[in-house]
Amino acid sequence: MRNMKMTIEYDGKRYLGWQRLGNSDKTIQGKIENVLMQMVGEKIEIIGSGRTDAGTHARGQVANFKMKSTLSTHEILTFLNRYLPNDIVIKDVSEVGDRFHARYNAKAKQYSYYVWNDVIPTAFYRHHSFYVPQELDLEKMGKASEKLLGTHDFIGFSALKKTKKSTVRKIEEIRIEKEGAMLHFTFIGDGFLHKMIRILTGTLLEIGMGKLDMNVIDDVLENKIRQDAGETVPAAGLFLDEVFYE
Amino acid sequence: MRNMKMTIEYDGKRYLGWQRLGNSDKTIQGKIENVLMQMVGEKIEIIGSGRTDAGTHARGQVANFKMKSTLSTHEILTFLNRYLPNDIVIKDVSEVGDRFHARYNAKAKQYSYYVWNDVIPTAFYRHHSFYVPQELDLEKMGKASEKLLGTHDFIGFSALKKTKKSTVRKIEEIRIEKEGAMLHFTFIGDGFLHKMIRILTGTLLEIGMGKLDMNVIDDVLENKIRQDAGETVPAAGLFLDEVFYE
Repeated sequence: MRNMKMTIEYDGKRYLGWQRLGNSDKTIQGKIENVLMQMVGEKIEIIGSGRTDAGTHARGQVANFKMKSTLSTHEILTFLNRYLPNDIVIKDVSEVGDRFHARYNAKAKQYSYYVWNDVIPTAFYRHHSFYVPQELDLEKMGKASEKLLGTHDFIGFSALKKTKKSTVRKIEEIRIEKEGAMLHFTFIGDGFLHKMIRILTGTLLEIGMGKLDMNVIDDVLENKIRQDAGETVPAAGLFLDEVFYE
Repeated sequence: MRNMKMTIEYDGKRYLGWQRLGNSDKTIQGKIENVLMQMVGEKIEIIGSGRTDAGTHARGQVANFKMKSTLSTHEILTFLNRYLPNDIVIKDVSEVGDRFHARYNAKAKQYSYYVWNDVIPTAFYRHHSFYVPQELDLEKMGKASEKLLGTHDFIGFSALKKTKKSTVRKIEEIRIEKEGAMLHFTFIGDGFLHKMIRILTGTLLEIGMGKLDMNVIDDVLENKIRQDAGETVPAAGLFLDEVFYE
């Protein structure tokens, strides 16, 4: 069996997220698996680097799958892009070692979150950003974001209930940059819990609006109470940019 | 009567173009006039700087309208953005002199056309660009574009039949820039004929592909034969960026 790795870009707006739900056609994984089945004539399961939620976008989701077919990587790329809907694009296909696993081998991920921050809304980025007309104290948000860096138990900043799996993660970097009206959050870390980036962004935004104090970060890292953090911002602003492997 | 000027951004995808068609709700002008009527309780006609075709976008369309209402510019802006669909955004409203006319007083316009030029398509810009996978000779296209500068009868590069109105226009500037896979054409001129930018872009692209010779530009400017020029590229890639007044 050959082990194939692919990089995927998708506009998540029309989908229920990455992970296949039964035979539903409304997931990214489901759409790609259906086209792969057309291509090789048998069922193929693809393994993503992780799930993305309904409405979340990706510039560089990574997945792998095993197949017997002798098709070239170029033929696979061409077939997939011809038959996938045009809001899912395969950017790259390569053959990798037998042991490569898109989820287990992922060392780090980068996500972006976009906020349109202006009194005037945006016609063009309305499906790819969250609209916040209020003034934001970016300096305060930057300082608050530094408190999140490093290794912490982030369960209070996630949609998870108590779990036996570790909820400790390491955030390497958070950048908050403004270009025109668009505020761009970048998060790099070894992994992120369910809805963690949307809750972190929501918390930073509420700190920027003066609705929450900066100390809420320390408090929630310690007390692990989800309700003390900010709101979950909408999936439309979230992009999985890149998955890093060794 | 007060004379009000507004700047409008719209994503043209869902619309039949700028100009109102009877009572149809599927035009930009129609949508804005309907909301203005809600606002002041009587019919208001808005005058655009010019029409845009079905599917064409705008970052800075300009229109004016007369009204008796004493509402402030801020109240008008807020009302319009609250009740317009979110793919039409009013960026600015100001009160201008009685004689300002958005069409007659327009001195120049700037348009952009976007081409996604890569073997891999784009999930995100698919509604705002034209996909051209073929390799393009950008240097040749640049040289060909220079032949278009200045004052010419552009009827051969338009969708117009013979007309009594002048079809002579002046193009001040054409820029062709590539950033990543996105090829960005910018056109600045004193006015553009129906579908002229889409036909000019189509012609430049066919020159870049080697399907047409550069001399086609001189030929069509002289012989005025539409069929000798390139294809009309899709409206989705076209943006009215800005309208210039004195």
